[in-house]
Amino acid sequence: MSLSPEQQAEIDELRANPQPTLRVVAPGMEGHLYKARPVLDHGFVRVVDYMGDDAAICQAARVSYGKGTKSVQNDEGLIRYLMRHWHSTPFEMCELKLHVKLPVFVARQWIRHRTANVNEYSARYSILDREFYIPAPEHINAQSVVNNQGRGDVLEGEEAARVLEILKADSARCYDNYQTLIDADGVGLARELARMNLPANIYTQWYWKVDLHNLFHFLRLRADAHAQYEIRVYAEAICEMVSDWVPAAYKAFEDYRMGSVTMSAQMVDCLRRMLKGETVTQENAGMSAREWREFQEVIA
Amino acid sequence: MSLSPEQQAEIDELRANPQPTLRVVAPGMEGHLYKARPVLDHGFVRVVDYMGDDAAICQAARVSYGKGTKSVQNDEGLIRYLMRHWHSTPFEMCELKLHVKLPVFVARQWIRHRTANVNEYSARYSILDREFYIPAPEHINAQSVVNNQGRGDVLEGEEAARVLEILKADSARCYDNYQTLIDADGVGLARELARMNLPANIYTQWYWKVDLHNLFHFLRLRADAHAQYEIRVYAEAICEMVSDWVPAAYKAFEDYRMGSVTMSAQMVDCLRRMLKGETVTQENAGMSAREWREFQEVIA
Amino acid sequence: MSLSPEQQAEIDELRANPQPTLRVVAPGMEGHLYKARPVLDHGFVRVVDYMGDDAAICQAARVSYGKGTKSVQNDEGLIRYLMRHWHSTPFEMCELKLHVKLPVFVARQWIRHRTANVNEYSARYSILDREFYIPAPEHINAQSVVNNQGRGDVLEGEEAARVLEILKADSARCYDNYQTLIDADGVGLARELARMNLPANIYTQWYWKVDLHNLFHFLRLRADAHAQYEIRVYAEAICEMVSDWVPAAYKAFEDYRMGSVTMSAQMVDCLRRMLKGETVTQENAGMSAREWREFQEVIA
Amino acid sequence: MSLSPEQQAEIDELRANPQPTLRVVAPGMEGHLYKARPVLDHGFVRVVDYMGDDAAICQAARVSYGKGTKSVQNDEGLIRYLMRHWHSTPFEMCELKLHVKLPVFVARQWIRHRTANVNEYSARYSILDREFYIPAPEHINAQSVVNNQGRGDVLEGEEAARVLEILKADSARCYDNYQTLIDADGVGLARELARMNLPANIYTQWYWKVDLHNLFHFLRLRADAHAQYEIRVYAEAICEMVSDWVPAAYKAFEDYRMGSVTMSAQMVDCLRRMLKGETVTQENAGMSAREWREFQEVIA
Repeated sequence: MSLSPEQQAEIDELRANPQPTLRVVAPGMEGHLYKARPVLDHGFVRVVDYMGDDAAICQAARVSYGKGTKSVQNDEGLIRYLMRHWHSTPFEMCELKLHVKLPVFVARQWIRHRTANVNEYSARYSILDREFYIPAPEHINAQSVVNNQGRGDVLEGEEAARVLEILKADSARCYDNYQTLIDADGVGLARELARMNLPANIYTQWYWKVDLHNLFHFLRLRADAHAQYEIRVYAEAICEMVSDWVPAAYKAFEDYRMGSVTMSAQMVDCLRRMLKGETVTQENAGMSAREWREFQEVIA
Repeated sequence: MSLSPEQQAEIDELRANPQPTLRVVAPGMEGHLYKARPVLDHGFVRVVDYMGDDAAICQAARVSYGKGTKSVQNDEGLIRYLMRHWHSTPFEMCELKLHVKLPVFVARQWIRHRTANVNEYSARYSILDREFYIPAPEHINAQSVVNNQGRGDVLEGEEAARVLEILKADSARCYDNYQTLIDADGVGLARELARMNLPANIYTQWYWKVDLHNLFHFLRLRADAHAQYEIRVYAEAICEMVSDWVPAAYKAFEDYRMGSVTMSAQMVDCLRRMLKGETVTQENAGMSAREWREFQEVIA
Repeated sequence: MSLSPEQQAEIDELRANPQPTLRVVAPGMEGHLYKARPVLDHGFVRVVDYMGDDAAICQAARVSYGKGTKSVQNDEGLIRYLMRHWHSTPFEMCELKLHVKLPVFVARQWIRHRTANVNEYSARYSILDREFYIPAPEHINAQSVVNNQGRGDVLEGEEAARVLEILKADSARCYDNYQTLIDADGVGLARELARMNLPANIYTQWYWKVDLHNLFHFLRLRADAHAQYEIRVYAEAICEMVSDWVPAAYKAFEDYRMGSVTMSAQMVDCLRRMLKGETVTQENAGMSAREWREFQEVIA
Repeated sequence: MSLSPEQQAEIDELRANPQPTLRVVAPGMEGHLYKARPVLDHGFVRVVDYMGDDAAICQAARVSYGKGTKSVQNDEGLIRYLMRHWHSTPFEMCELKLHVKLPVFVARQWIRHRTANVNEYSARYSILDREFYIPAPEHINAQSVVNNQGRGDVLEGEEAARVLEILKADSARCYDNYQTLIDADGVGLARELARMNLPANIYTQWYWKVDLHNLFHFLRLRADAHAQYEIRVYAEAICEMVSDWVPAAYKAFEDYRMGSVTMSAQMVDCLRRMLKGETVTQENAGMSAREWREFQEVIA
């Protein structure tokens, strides 16, 4: 990703002028504001605005007049309690606004999370830039043979070269033709029609605003090891920002969501039997082969 | 409404310490932060936090890197265009967090607006204060005879006195008994049960967070002349705050929402005929008596 | 709860006239339609309409033209997979519409679940019936001493009698005065004002429509042993209906939600160590005393 | 659009077996169930399920036990009243489930309406069909010169031919290469990566479920003359289905939404002055040139 000098100048200007506010300020997040953190080959994530901090979560949980307790330790304990017991509304009291540049096929997956506000760059109104996602060689994988919805081994040599060759050539040709179509001195096709010739690895941009509870839900699914690599890198970039913004809430999220395991009624039953010394097998566990395999992975 | 010295001290402390931020600051809103604006006899509205300003609406609409245009005039034109043509997503990019104290029967109406985040004071966990809404004499009205869902004339003399007497006596008695029920040295009833003895004019509190688009929707319905007085005064208080926060967006809201009229296909047809000099009556207008009456009110 | 003869006649009429439809029919749910299942002393839950069944979940997950697989076993496996891996959208393809009569303090808790459609009986427009929730003696409990937000032991003897006496007397007096206030030949106060004199144990009614995914979320929280008894009985009544409607989805919900346990990163780590034979104590577990206690309860 | 014999057989089977139900049945909608109504060159809309009818709207508005009034006329009056006065919750009590096949660039616009449930065909898991939207000659338009976000005149002769040639050739080449990429005996690229080579005119499919209130909102924006043609034809197809399903609600929607005009405070003021005989010009109207032009269009 490279910003134009104009874009960089706009960002620099925004970062040059701190102003006084009476609102809650999260020092860890101020450092991120407006900067474009690169993701993939041309994408980025930028924090455009935020509301609240760890203390604001506690303040809302207590419906209090002031900041609430002075003790950071008490606040951490409360936040962990709220997270552990699925009290989600206090986390909804923090809000994050991002500017994201991302490939269209990633955007299509991302937008499935409906509880957020979105303004996307309009290809009916504007002309898209000539920027396409071309995967780095180490991220070109074969179809998984065990998971219909995932990747297997990294492709190498001739096969990887063939992938890159096709993606680059088709992107270039489609964009050349897009330009031919919209050229006002040539065909002059309406933009809302011409855009249909562009493949799903072209980059788009949007403003995306979400509350912390729904953001955690997004991050749990998309920063997960099973998420598609191309969206996971965005989620991981956001995780780092959130960790600087609301450190206590993020730690609780790591412990009780990202790193947690949900055990079914059958799994809990097996576990108790095993801890009592019983030998439990798939046969006497009441689980399907698939569930049993998942259970083994958890306790190994 | 009167704040306790502790509450006032907490508010004063929050207002005493401006901190530098790189975020957008709305000067008109900084003046409102944390102060408790009185509403009804014991209620209030306090701005606890906000995100964005008029320029942030335009910035999102343009999906831009910086502040966007330097011209305030251009921003106003864009905001009016967005409002007029129901482009709602840019307005969703501003967010407001309020602390509200309000009677339960008002809270029950307010919560019907689902697209907001809420943390309410828990009467399962805490003990409610002895504060009840008792209407001022000029807001004690008879049932309307024309509108099943509204108020008619102000009650006077003996009738108004009877209303006040009943409301005050029942509130006091119910609260005394609530105290008897929860008294740990007496009955010691669980709070989650004891609260059921309290009437709907008792005050509750909540943190309420909403984006500007959904807030405008709330204000259009609740600041309207047909809204119940007791919720309208809250909406009006919020209108004043929003007007100081995002003046251009608020003006567009006044012109295209609050002060606007939606005319049915039949009304528009009549209007055109009337402007051409035709005499239109209910008979040849294709409207019901009720619609015709509403139409007359609009054009009078 | 007792229905008036008119209400019973309306229900009987609705149940007397089956009509042919090409839509999916869930036989287990047809048996529940329109009947009023009693809950608490005057409340009820009635199924008014439903959309979809177990097969409809699979059909949506597969985006298929027809019913999808003919094999019930395959459908069950798919449903369990979807539930286990938090693929929530197929469950959103089923919808349930209920008519519920419930005390206002229960309604206030219920409405916190925002992702549903609601039409409540309007006390601005109509007059509420003289029906109040008075707990049965075995559900009158003291405040819990270990949980600020819960109930302890059942109250007995004089204390329980005092509770019933207060609740009954205050309900009766408040309703008498409500009638005095709205009496058109007397005070004639507007209904929207008079309702504020009614305590939170009065019954209200609403139509509530929700998709199956959000309903499961509601049931997980409200049919839980920690939920307040007065809302839990509603949730339990709905659980039985859902079990008859979508048996495979409900079984998966029981195994992977209701009966499941979410273990934190620390708990999973301890578990692995314990299964390897290590003696783990709170000291070397990295958990707070509270978390350790919760962990012990799970594995006991 | 052409269905495969298997697909047609599945649809025929679903339509061949009416079953008795006690639920509300909308005869006008039964006729549409499961049939695939063609839209564009390969797309379709199919009703998969529905809940409710006109009477169900009234029943919810009245929170009644039975069907409510027997009089169709009363129901129509109530529905028109509810629509006119923006009482949206009763309309939320009807629900529609559609199966839609549509080009990806249309799907991207459609999904912006967030208050619906969606299951889309997964190109991570499955292989997309070789079907691309190629506009009919009469729908190939130049970029509008007056509206940055719209179409101008139809292109003809050589220019139209060039558009078709480019769209067809790029679609074919991209799909050929997609096949090369995913071919298990060849490159064997993961499907989640290969899909990025496909242009936005490829067809996708989804199940889409929405309540009537939110559907009306969608239809008002997308069946509007200013909507892009390729989504408008889907909206128009749905309008016909809804008109057969809930005729009274649809008529009210036509009169008070689709055919209505919202007049700003300034417009209403001008109108009153004009009806009193005053000559109003842009200069003395308090409107911008653009608003004035829009006003002239309304009253002409």
